Amino acid sequence: MRSPSLDVIIHELREYPGLTRKKSAGSFRDLVGEFFGEDAGFFNLGEFDIAFTIDGIWHKVLDADLYWGGFISVLVNVHDIYAMGARPKFAVDVISAKDKESLEIMKKGIIDGAKTYRVVFLKGHVHPDSYYNSIDVAMIGLARKGSLIRSNTAKEGDSIVIAVDTDGKPHEKLPYNFDSTKKDPEILIKQLESMVYLAEKNLVNAGKDLSNAGIVGTIGMMLEVSGKGGYVDIGKIPMPKNVEVIQWLKTYPGCGFCVSTSYPEEVIDVFRRHGLEAAVVGEVNSSRVFTLRLNLDEKVFYDFRNESILGLV
Amino acid sequence: MRSPSLDVIIHELREYPGLTRKKSAGSFRDLVGEFFGEDAGFFNLGEFDIAFTIDGIWHKVLDADLYWGGFISVLVNVHDIYAMGARPKFAVDVISAKDKESLEIMKKGIIDGAKTYRVVFLKGHVHPDSYYNSIDVAMIGLARKGSLIRSNTAKEGDSIVIAVDTDGKPHEKLPYNFDSTKKDPEILIKQLESMVYLAEKNLVNAGKDLSNAGIVGTIGMMLEVSGKGGYVDIGKIPMPKNVEVIQWLKTYPGCGFCVSTSYPEEVIDVFRRHGLEAAVVGEVNSSRVFTLRLNLDEKVFYDFRNESILGLV
Repeated sequence: MRSPSLDVIIHELREYPGLTRKKSAGSFRDLVGEFFGEDAGFFNLGEFDIAFTIDGIWHKVLDADLYWGGFISVLVNVHDIYAMGARPKFAVDVISAKDKESLEIMKKGIIDGAKTYRVVFLKGHVHPDSYYNSIDVAMIGLARKGSLIRSNTAKEGDSIVIAVDTDGKPHEKLPYNFDSTKKDPEILIKQLESMVYLAEKNLVNAGKDLSNAGIVGTIGMMLEVSGKGGYVDIGKIPMPKNVEVIQWLKTYPGCGFCVSTSYPEEVIDVFRRHGLEAAVVGEVNSSRVFTLRLNLDEKVFYDFRNESILGLV
Repeated sequence: MRSPSLDVIIHELREYPGLTRKKSAGSFRDLVGEFFGEDAGFFNLGEFDIAFTIDGIWHKVLDADLYWGGFISVLVNVHDIYAMGARPKFAVDVISAKDKESLEIMKKGIIDGAKTYRVVFLKGHVHPDSYYNSIDVAMIGLARKGSLIRSNTAKEGDSIVIAVDTDGKPHEKLPYNFDSTKKDPEILIKQLESMVYLAEKNLVNAGKDLSNAGIVGTIGMMLEVSGKGGYVDIGKIPMPKNVEVIQWLKTYPGCGFCVSTSYPEEVIDVFRRHGLEAAVVGEVNSSRVFTLRLNLDEKVFYDFRNESILGLV
């Protein structure tokens, strides 16, 4: 099958709501200060750094599948915590439910997510009489003091590495949710633990979990908050066989990370040993322009000198 | 003005949605296990116990006043953490907003709440394109190891003490939100710190913040999860001059706690020194029947042997 042109890819990605709605994030900069753009905030306590995050599930996900919404309300927070190189430990949640049946389905998803990813829920708050269904989960993770991976510290000359589990399939009703979670939890956790290993060995300069903004969009956020530019060669991104390229680039994978590193070979080796596909897909530079490459073509995706993914200009 | 009869008071309180909607809490017992009925869950880390909580703002509050909803989204979590005898430190939030204006008003409330109660926000997540307005905030507090106050440990023979700031007035549009927060933050924090003092001196057996279930309803939850009964004498509850008794009993005060203690005089002294009105209002017994007294009358409010506030039977 013929691949779409780079122009078409860029147009599609720039119009993708998963990416465009990140613009509203900028309005939080005055609230969270130095943690703006991080997957989780954090603080130190003795020999530990404690990562603290929260995520809400997009109403379109819950409209499509209440159980999946419950399950991923745990998963997306697990991703945030591992993206920092920390281990998720404890969670709390708020469920708003239109009715008892919806509440029970969402809760079942949360309980299964907690069991799969070995997170202990310490509190649940419920609005039993809501006019909508929604789930928000907050999570705490622990890391060895000084080891956390940040989003805004990508360095000029770094290689950009993507690691992702391509063994799965898109959710039936949510084409950009790639479900690779139907596996033994041991395997899923081993994949995620790659980030703790990289953090403790100090092998990466920055990292994020591949999430709602899609694979390329997430890299864009890392470059933007780092005050850098760079390129990504789309042809080098690990891909499942059963998904079209544009769909894949918009995807929130069941397990995926991008990192910026001076040790690409070691990093790829770590990811592979943890059961993820991994490849160098591009490089960081100081241009503040983020370009995409495909075959011999190269085009500007975002020019952070005068536009912003995160709503900062 | 003539006080309503005990029958009328009991009928009104038993029909109050702030209390009746607590029934849905029972459905969370399978998720949070031993922390069911606590104001916050917790875990130990070195010399600290870490309290972790979350609360969502009832949509009726946001329908009435977006700014107040933002402010109390911080306050209700601050209450949860102090109720455990811990100090609130860090928070994260999810805002869903119908439009940019609503988002900004809610955020202003959150920022003012964070400033007033000296809580640092580490992450904010926003749904900019929602069909409803909502706020959920999660919070972490720190306590000295082993000092935390629980909800389910009231003991037979304990005095029930209420401490509350009666200097304020009901919110214009929310008659059961009593706003006592229009004061120097130093005063507000000193009031709350009473609970940390009681926790560290080990002066109470159990405690909770007076919240949505109202003053009497909150005491009921403490007795129920403790597997106890007891009485409360309504005439002994500290009251502001500008609020009717039934309205007051349904109220979520700007600052209020109930505790169960073997040292009522010391506890009342601590609360008063921290700027709260405080009084012994009743006693804990082993009957599993919670009665209310008024003048010479005494009637059953909840019989936990065959009914439940928290949806446990």
